[in-house]
Amino acid sequence: MESQNLRTNDEYRDVCLKEGERLDDLNRNGYMIIQNSGKFCFGMDAVLLTGFANINEGEKVMDLGTGTGIIPILLAAKSNCNAHFTALEIQEESADMASRSVRYNGLQDSIDIVCGDIKEASNIFKKASYDVVTSNPPYMNDNHGIKNPDMPKAIARHELLCTLEDVVREAALLLKPGGRFYMVHRPHRLAEIICTLREHILEPKRIRLVHPFADKDANMVLIESARGGKPMMKVESPLIVYKSQGEYTDEIYTIYNK
Amino acid sequence: MESQNLRTNDEYRDVCLKEGERLDDLNRNGYMIIQNSGKFCFGMDAVLLTGFANINEGEKVMDLGTGTGIIPILLAAKSNCNAHFTALEIQEESADMASRSVRYNGLQDSIDIVCGDIKEASNIFKKASYDVVTSNPPYMNDNHGIKNPDMPKAIARHELLCTLEDVVREAALLLKPGGRFYMVHRPHRLAEIICTLREHILEPKRIRLVHPFADKDANMVLIESARGGKPMMKVESPLIVYKSQGEYTDEIYTIYNK
Repeated sequence: MESQNLRTNDEYRDVCLKEGERLDDLNRNGYMIIQNSGKFCFGMDAVLLTGFANINEGEKVMDLGTGTGIIPILLAAKSNCNAHFTALEIQEESADMASRSVRYNGLQDSIDIVCGDIKEASNIFKKASYDVVTSNPPYMNDNHGIKNPDMPKAIARHELLCTLEDVVREAALLLKPGGRFYMVHRPHRLAEIICTLREHILEPKRIRLVHPFADKDANMVLIESARGGKPMMKVESPLIVYKSQGEYTDEIYTIYNK
Repeated sequence: MESQNLRTNDEYRDVCLKEGERLDDLNRNGYMIIQNSGKFCFGMDAVLLTGFANINEGEKVMDLGTGTGIIPILLAAKSNCNAHFTALEIQEESADMASRSVRYNGLQDSIDIVCGDIKEASNIFKKASYDVVTSNPPYMNDNHGIKNPDMPKAIARHELLCTLEDVVREAALLLKPGGRFYMVHRPHRLAEIICTLREHILEPKRIRLVHPFADKDANMVLIESARGGKPMMKVESPLIVYKSQGEYTDEIYTIYNK
């Protein structure tokens, strides 16, 4: 049996890594994540979402489309408050990497990784039973351009296996009344995102636009909505990534804990 | 008969101003505007909307709820391209000030001021005949708080005589297919704004958030939508008003032409 905190076991690294995989330091609580750069590695969007989401003491959290588990692992490190995370991922290989990262970090009591389909989430899990749902879903709906997809990357980026509508519908079904849904997405779909949320009785409450530079268009949007919330939202200060070419802003360093 | 360019006529000032009114310099083409600070004076929102809107050669433009005519007068100064403006205002006193400002600036050929109700705009004017609609409508829908309203200000600020839905519906009816609707509003209603636009087949295409300071929540939103446009929008760089307490950013000075 592995010990509770496997990251203290030097030998585990060789045991847990499969061919092509690497172990990356998350700079929080000493946590690491297993990734395979030939498949799909997490991006800044997932990290910024964990900086944007607020998780309270003892809450039940669901991450839809967790990939290698980056969001629950970072939130577990950030929240440090006995929250419990369930993370759903359709790709077996990613779910397996996520499970091994959870074990490597000794987070088995806090995070359950489940291999399954987002479209079926409200059948797999209990409806109206989560305080929070998070998601960094596929952004792209121009799937006709994909000829020879590198599947793991294509599934993570394009709406091949689930659409925005699927993610929003399942989030709404899983949330308790008043529960919060945190999502990162692309601003070019913001109008569609907002209307889809409202169709599923998820009221947008807080938005933050992410701009690569202060004078450039936004390239990500962070959005918090509340199940059955009243119409009244806040657009927070813009989150700027670089202050000059190659130099991150202080806020980005803070979010990355560097 | 007044001369074409009445602002060259020093005597006109005394003739055109009524009690309590003043003449303010708009810093564009020497244009002036008649206002009454006891009633309602234009704010930064109207000026920023004219900086955000693009008017092309020869276009037909409608301003819904023009107040003292600030938007068409500033756009006429900015566009300088034979565009033609019609401006609708329900309050007789404001419409009268707007008409006198138009004459004062010699803009009678470019701007028609009409006194009438936004809710009836598509009955007063020809449907599907405008290239552009602009509006700086009342923002507030918490009208129950108004006990002894100072009517001109209350009508301009609160949805007493027309709602967001009225403005959007009439804009949609007046626009040609592909025509553009430019509106300034409050971010706390952004979700409702976006969904109302889409319900009336006005697709949001460009958004700009206005923040008083770079690290503060947005307090205005500028939004361009297109009649029958495809879903694909752009969130432009944030527009920051102050770089430090009391000191405007360069961009604000540029928009104000100072």
